[in-house]
Amino acid sequence: MKIESVDFFYLSMPEVLDIGDGSQDALLVRVAAGGLVGYGECEAAPLPSIAAYVCPMSHSACKPVRASVEGQPLEDVADIRRIGDWVRENSLDLLQADHTLSGIDMALWDLLGKRLGEPVYRLLGYPKATPRLPYASQLFGDTPGETFRKAVDAVQQGFRAVKFGWGTFGKSTLEADIHQVEAARLGLGSEAHLMIDAGTVWGEDVERAAQRLPALHAAEVAWLEEPFPGGALAAYEALSQRNPRVPLAGGEGSHNFFTAAQMVDHAGLSFLQIDAGRAGGISIAHRIAVYAQARGVTYVNHTFTSHLALSASLQPYAGMEGALFCEFPIEPKLLAWELTCEHLAPNANGEILPPEAPGLGMTVDTAALRKYLVDVEIKVKGHVIYRTPELK
Amino acid sequence: MKIESVDFFYLSMPEVLDIGDGSQDALLVRVAAGGLVGYGECEAAPLPSIAAYVCPMSHSACKPVRASVEGQPLEDVADIRRIGDWVRENSLDLLQADHTLSGIDMALWDLLGKRLGEPVYRLLGYPKATPRLPYASQLFGDTPGETFRKAVDAVQQGFRAVKFGWGTFGKSTLEADIHQVEAARLGLGSEAHLMIDAGTVWGEDVERAAQRLPALHAAEVAWLEEPFPGGALAAYEALSQRNPRVPLAGGEGSHNFFTAAQMVDHAGLSFLQIDAGRAGGISIAHRIAVYAQARGVTYVNHTFTSHLALSASLQPYAGMEGALFCEFPIEPKLLAWELTCEHLAPNANGEILPPEAPGLGMTVDTAALRKYLVDVEIKVKGHVIYRTPELK
Repeated sequence: MKIESVDFFYLSMPEVLDIGDGSQDALLVRVAAGGLVGYGECEAAPLPSIAAYVCPMSHSACKPVRASVEGQPLEDVADIRRIGDWVRENSLDLLQADHTLSGIDMALWDLLGKRLGEPVYRLLGYPKATPRLPYASQLFGDTPGETFRKAVDAVQQGFRAVKFGWGTFGKSTLEADIHQVEAARLGLGSEAHLMIDAGTVWGEDVERAAQRLPALHAAEVAWLEEPFPGGALAAYEALSQRNPRVPLAGGEGSHNFFTAAQMVDHAGLSFLQIDAGRAGGISIAHRIAVYAQARGVTYVNHTFTSHLALSASLQPYAGMEGALFCEFPIEPKLLAWELTCEHLAPNANGEILPPEAPGLGMTVDTAALRKYLVDVEIKVKGHVIYRTPELK
Repeated sequence: MKIESVDFFYLSMPEVLDIGDGSQDALLVRVAAGGLVGYGECEAAPLPSIAAYVCPMSHSACKPVRASVEGQPLEDVADIRRIGDWVRENSLDLLQADHTLSGIDMALWDLLGKRLGEPVYRLLGYPKATPRLPYASQLFGDTPGETFRKAVDAVQQGFRAVKFGWGTFGKSTLEADIHQVEAARLGLGSEAHLMIDAGTVWGEDVERAAQRLPALHAAEVAWLEEPFPGGALAAYEALSQRNPRVPLAGGEGSHNFFTAAQMVDHAGLSFLQIDAGRAGGISIAHRIAVYAQARGVTYVNHTFTSHLALSASLQPYAGMEGALFCEFPIEPKLLAWELTCEHLAPNANGEILPPEAPGLGMTVDTAALRKYLVDVEIKVKGHVIYRTPELK
């Protein structure tokens, strides 16, 4: 079969708030081939990602993503990888291309899985999927008391792993941060895994981050996430060598194989967090997962949006041993929830598995999504080069 | 003064060819403040870069670039750096933002320089500019004979440094590549500097690259450029350790400080090539230049478009000692040539210096550019969020 069409749907909540909630809009991608459709989702700013698909060519290494996708044959896994390589070569100088490709790549895997009657993880070579412990990601409370109550609530909801982050953490005094971490551990009890997400708050300031290590170590945190921006390898590496040792996590901003591999090689990470909706799709996320595992760094998905994105993000490391956790979005906006008819839920052991249905195993609820559809039109030299397609 | 307006002008040759010539279109940026205007140029796909400026907010860390620029105070150098930091924080998850920011940052330096009556390099702290030896960048000939003639011609034109690249180099047999390199050296004579640009042709294949090292070493090349894609640090590092030693150059794709710093730290480079129109503007290019110099890696500009971009690209390392070369676009398309009224030219010693006039020292030829202006309109939810502004 050949790729007949690729359509982008910009979806948004009626109002987008100035908060750190990435589930307020979505860029859904639909690929059609051989009488089937596959869906994917870019974890990316929708308008620039659409523009990267339809823009005029600037030169031979700055082509629109479209130039490397439409009309391409799609028969097997090698075809998907070839399309990705082709996009990276032809759109080398188009920075946003990796984000646009991410959703397309997901849709290609979904489509091929449906065609071959297999879940994506099996096409990736995993004979079976390994259960993952979902961790609930939450904001710190405004006070240690509030954080304590949120931790107690999370355990009562059945979570055995909980992440706290953002809020005032890292921005206030050392004592305030210590009290927050202690409150989180106290609320969770000694059994549950505790992760702390600093949200890049310390820039490249290793000393400020290192001041928090004793408290994080005493609270036995599973990891300290994003003390610094993703590319700040030297700062990560330096912090990873400081005592007491606290496992570091990072990598969610990786937008290709290399940016992730650099973190594996030079950041002293214990956990590498990859968003398949940014890194170049399932193909690249899988390559990263294999690379990380071979070097003793534990892969974890980064997912904060729909269960279509969640299914896609679980596939790249679905059968890997030793990759205990998965991120599980617990409070997505209604748009992200309504994006799929099916939803993943913890099994009796409180663990998450990817769907066994073909492809990504998710039905996109086009009827429910129509109310979120954002009308976009892009004209160049008087010609409409993009108009929001019908969602049906 | 405060930033009153930021306007983007998409310029294009009437026909864009599928060749590796990045001067076929341009994204010109005009910033107005305090009765003055400054100009910059994004070395980037115009439409996605415009979209990154005007798109609706996705969440608190995925805002349009506009949100961090318009209305901001602009009194001194610290204001420019603060605006850049603000863009990187507010548009953290918007990949294209760095390319959009690059042109804005240039325009801010141009504007501030005009306001303060100083060339940009002096605002960066360099008391004077150091002359650079321009290297002429050319494609390999189709045959060694043709390459030989091109080399002879370049020397006759007065160039003391010449780069050959692309074409079939690296894609054909080892013998063919050796003959090409030998022909280039023979044509240049023993005095002129010879650079070879492999244009990322070997992917991550260190062995294929290493096979060419004896011939490159025998030809005493100043550098071998981009044997691999920019992020492939491990491949670069491995090749840099192979004998015979050949200096490596790379980094033109760097889109922020970190991607460049990683190449300095982990790629075994001798030369770091930075395009201020991609890396985040003059501010980030300057930070990179200082970082590279402190670590013994020689900074070189990457410039393939207008003399506005050339002036901007010379500023970040204008006063650095030891940075012998500058890239000098010798065959830009007419659009790139006509972009400025003034043009930089080699002095009596065959060397290039940045302009002494305030700011970037270039007058944008708006009248000449009008014929290249591409009409763009972007509508979201029925509202026009971008329409090509008047160029006057």
